[in-house]
Amino acid sequence: MATASDLPHPEREALELSTVLFALSDPDRLEMVRQLRDGAMDAANCNALDPEIPKSTKSHLMKVLREAGVIRNEPNGRRRTLTLRRDDLDARFPGLLDAVLGGLDSGQGSR
Amino acid sequence: MATASDLPHPEREALELSTVLFALSDPDRLEMVRQLRDGAMDAANCNALDPEIPKSTKSHLMKVLREAGVIRNEPNGRRRTLTLRRDDLDARFPGLLDAVLGGLDSGQGSR
Repeated sequence: MATASDLPHPEREALELSTVLFALSDPDRLEMVRQLRDGAMDAANCNALDPEIPKSTKSHLMKVLREAGVIRNEPNGRRRTLTLRRDDLDARFPGLLDAVLGGLDSGQGSR
Repeated sequence: MATASDLPHPEREALELSTVLFALSDPDRLEMVRQLRDGAMDAANCNALDPEIPKSTKSHLMKVLREAGVIRNEPNGRRRTLTLRRDDLDARFPGLLDAVLGGLDSGQGSR
């Protein structure tokens, strides 16, 4: 049974290129993706990052990424865990995530 | 001397990942990029494509792509020619354009 803590996530087959590109087109969302590259993150920790960004803004960043299918935001006990949907993105858009993360590494994603 | 027909284009070094991703995040702009993949296009021909899109909207699509550094829009006699900045994009964000075009080819970019 779905509960209030089960946020909707699009299926792999429903991911759309333009929507994914839009989700990645913001420096703050790109930074969130970069931080999730190396593994899952507690959503509360994500909120603790960069104190200059209001928590409500971070919640919205997470929502855009989740609804585009870039990340998962799932309950984990009484906490929530964020993960990058690398397998789904690689299956649908081969090479895209690596190209974006590579562009970030070379410092091209800065504001 | 710059004339009114010389539209500004960002230098290769000034291209930003998030801006390029935003320019590519719209289905109509993606379609324009797809059509430029195989070679230059007369801007007037571009305007003739898809009569359902108003000419003013197409001009704006071209402007967003040009200002992001995705395409060039340059005078050619009394006409204007659109070209994809593949060399610049490949140099700055290796693999990105191919991944996006590949995603389009597999029909994932549709609205």
